Amino acid sequence: MTDLPDIVQKRLLPLERTLDTLETPAVLIDVQIADANLVRWQARCDRAGLANRPHIKTHRSVAWAQRQLELGAKGITVQTVGEAEVMVDAGINDIFLTTIVLGPAKLARLGALARRCCLAVVADSAQVVDAIATTARQTDAQITVLVECDTGAGRCGLTDPVAIVTLAQRIAGSQGLRFGGLMTYPAAGKRQDSAGVLNASIAACQAAGVPVPVVSSGGSPDMWSDEGLEPVTEYRAGTYIYNDRALVSYGAATLDQCAMTVLATVVSRPTADRAIIDAGSKALTSDLLGLDGYGMVIEHPEARIYQLNEEHGLLDVSRCAAPPAIGDRIHVLPNHTCVVANLFDRLYVVAGGQLLGALPVDARGRSG
Amino acid sequence: MTDLPDIVQKRLLPLERTLDTLETPAVLIDVQIADANLVRWQARCDRAGLANRPHIKTHRSVAWAQRQLELGAKGITVQTVGEAEVMVDAGINDIFLTTIVLGPAKLARLGALARRCCLAVVADSAQVVDAIATTARQTDAQITVLVECDTGAGRCGLTDPVAIVTLAQRIAGSQGLRFGGLMTYPAAGKRQDSAGVLNASIAACQAAGVPVPVVSSGGSPDMWSDEGLEPVTEYRAGTYIYNDRALVSYGAATLDQCAMTVLATVVSRPTADRAIIDAGSKALTSDLLGLDGYGMVIEHPEARIYQLNEEHGLLDVSRCAAPPAIGDRIHVLPNHTCVVANLFDRLYVVAGGQLLGALPVDARGRSG
Repeated sequence: MTDLPDIVQKRLLPLERTLDTLETPAVLIDVQIADANLVRWQARCDRAGLANRPHIKTHRSVAWAQRQLELGAKGITVQTVGEAEVMVDAGINDIFLTTIVLGPAKLARLGALARRCCLAVVADSAQVVDAIATTARQTDAQITVLVECDTGAGRCGLTDPVAIVTLAQRIAGSQGLRFGGLMTYPAAGKRQDSAGVLNASIAACQAAGVPVPVVSSGGSPDMWSDEGLEPVTEYRAGTYIYNDRALVSYGAATLDQCAMTVLATVVSRPTADRAIIDAGSKALTSDLLGLDGYGMVIEHPEARIYQLNEEHGLLDVSRCAAPPAIGDRIHVLPNHTCVVANLFDRLYVVAGGQLLGALPVDARGRSG
Repeated sequence: MTDLPDIVQKRLLPLERTLDTLETPAVLIDVQIADANLVRWQARCDRAGLANRPHIKTHRSVAWAQRQLELGAKGITVQTVGEAEVMVDAGINDIFLTTIVLGPAKLARLGALARRCCLAVVADSAQVVDAIATTARQTDAQITVLVECDTGAGRCGLTDPVAIVTLAQRIAGSQGLRFGGLMTYPAAGKRQDSAGVLNASIAACQAAGVPVPVVSSGGSPDMWSDEGLEPVTEYRAGTYIYNDRALVSYGAATLDQCAMTVLATVVSRPTADRAIIDAGSKALTSDLLGLDGYGMVIEHPEARIYQLNEEHGLLDVSRCAAPPAIGDRIHVLPNHTCVVANLFDRLYVVAGGQLLGALPVDARGRSG
């Protein structure tokens, strides 16, 4: 099929199923929508002069990471050493690991990775910088370290430009390390505050004679806004490949840009107002992200998924003009796509109403 | 090690790690606590005259299912066709599948299973009974079907004893099927109501000349209570093997009966009041089950896990007398053990402070 990127086609596993016979619950990916999402975001980055460094955490699939690079991404972002290893094994060689890594075994793996690819990591304390430096020396590798800045999200990171410069100097002065710049994960809706902290930190670094090669930001809710982007040189976004109900609620995606749905079967109609589907928390997760209900039923948007047990989804169908019947196959738009992909070993690729094959979630479960 | 059941020992995978070097996040299972939980529950069932039919959804591991049978379980309970297949492949041959199965591919697999083991399933509608009967005839198999009764939980199931008898008669009159009895998943704290519905249904069946071989109930919060148990012949409980913070909060387990913890590392201390660990929703899930916070830190019970991102856990440590430091390895008691095991391909077995090996989660991800 000409619409399927070659890179994805190559990794598709054949199936003895059609869209009508595929067992439920099953995660479906509309490949045309997903690929259009990739193209659209790359174009946005190009127009804004941002390097695109997509976060592969959402899809955890080698094929999609390779497609993102093929379309113009500078490199990829990962959250774990395990994700990095899977991607490097597949030949991807520009990796930014944006969670702090500690522990002897993980650091040893980090050092091994650094010998195989261009690896950048983050730190927000001297202890972590020193641990990475020790690793770099022990493995005779070069590791790039960016300082994580808390610009409003209140998670990891330094807030004070003086502390940021001090840590940058520690990195620059450590054998085996190279100071890669500043990294942040800003608070949604607070891009101007974020820019303020970043600008002050850049100025402080420059005043101290420390060049800042990269200013890396991210966050999906604000991804389409140019507000506060002036200091940023690269953007790490992940969820945009599939989008989800949360992003639609933030106005960061439209319903027809949502590539992932969970196919489920209505297995019971015990009362006029209740329907039970075979997709529960082990298919949708309990992530609410502030939304009402555990997902949206595409065929019955007035239905409310009010409760999830592990393999049961409970729907209130009292407001459905034509409520679902036993045996109906329905599509659920999940609240949070990133965690759903991680539940399954493979996702099912569809286009034009056809089931094309299965895509492995190569880095599924690689949270260490 | 003599304390490790042979059955579990046989399936342990060797590791080149110790408890100090194991990468985080990692799910640890204290095998002595888990095995004691299995023994204790079997003894409770024996005393109460209940057949123990443990739910393997919590551990999804062949070794533990075999251990439960070795200790006296009558058979096992599964929630999906995939779980059943994994267990039957391992030689387990008495399976009760307690979610409603529909769809041609799943039903075909059901039929294939029924030729390999003693298989019982549930139904709460004529449509489902007929679909299973068709499957049984097509595969020349014998399938036992229990009627699912809603005795207060408001999920699947029939509430009216007349409807229950009618469906039982439909099952009994279908070639390839055998009526297996009544099944329910009662509401927590409402066992007497549940017993009332069950008793009325049993009476209605008997009045119609339909024997009721089995009355199968379940539910973990009330598992230790004898209230409302008179009509019940078998009990399906799963969570008791590991227990979790929710069960402790219900009074159904004590802290020292909790076998599962998630090992995590403190990676950042950005402020005096905040600590970040490398266990997020991809290690703990967002399941709250009505509790405050996303788990309990064993070493720092006054800490509050107030937010989870996918690979970050955010702790408020303001009330800790001796708060954790960067690099500390801590154990998190998860809110809900059943969904945590399903996130990982393997769990790490510990005893007496030693890491013994890794146990595969054989049916991980098998939600279809």
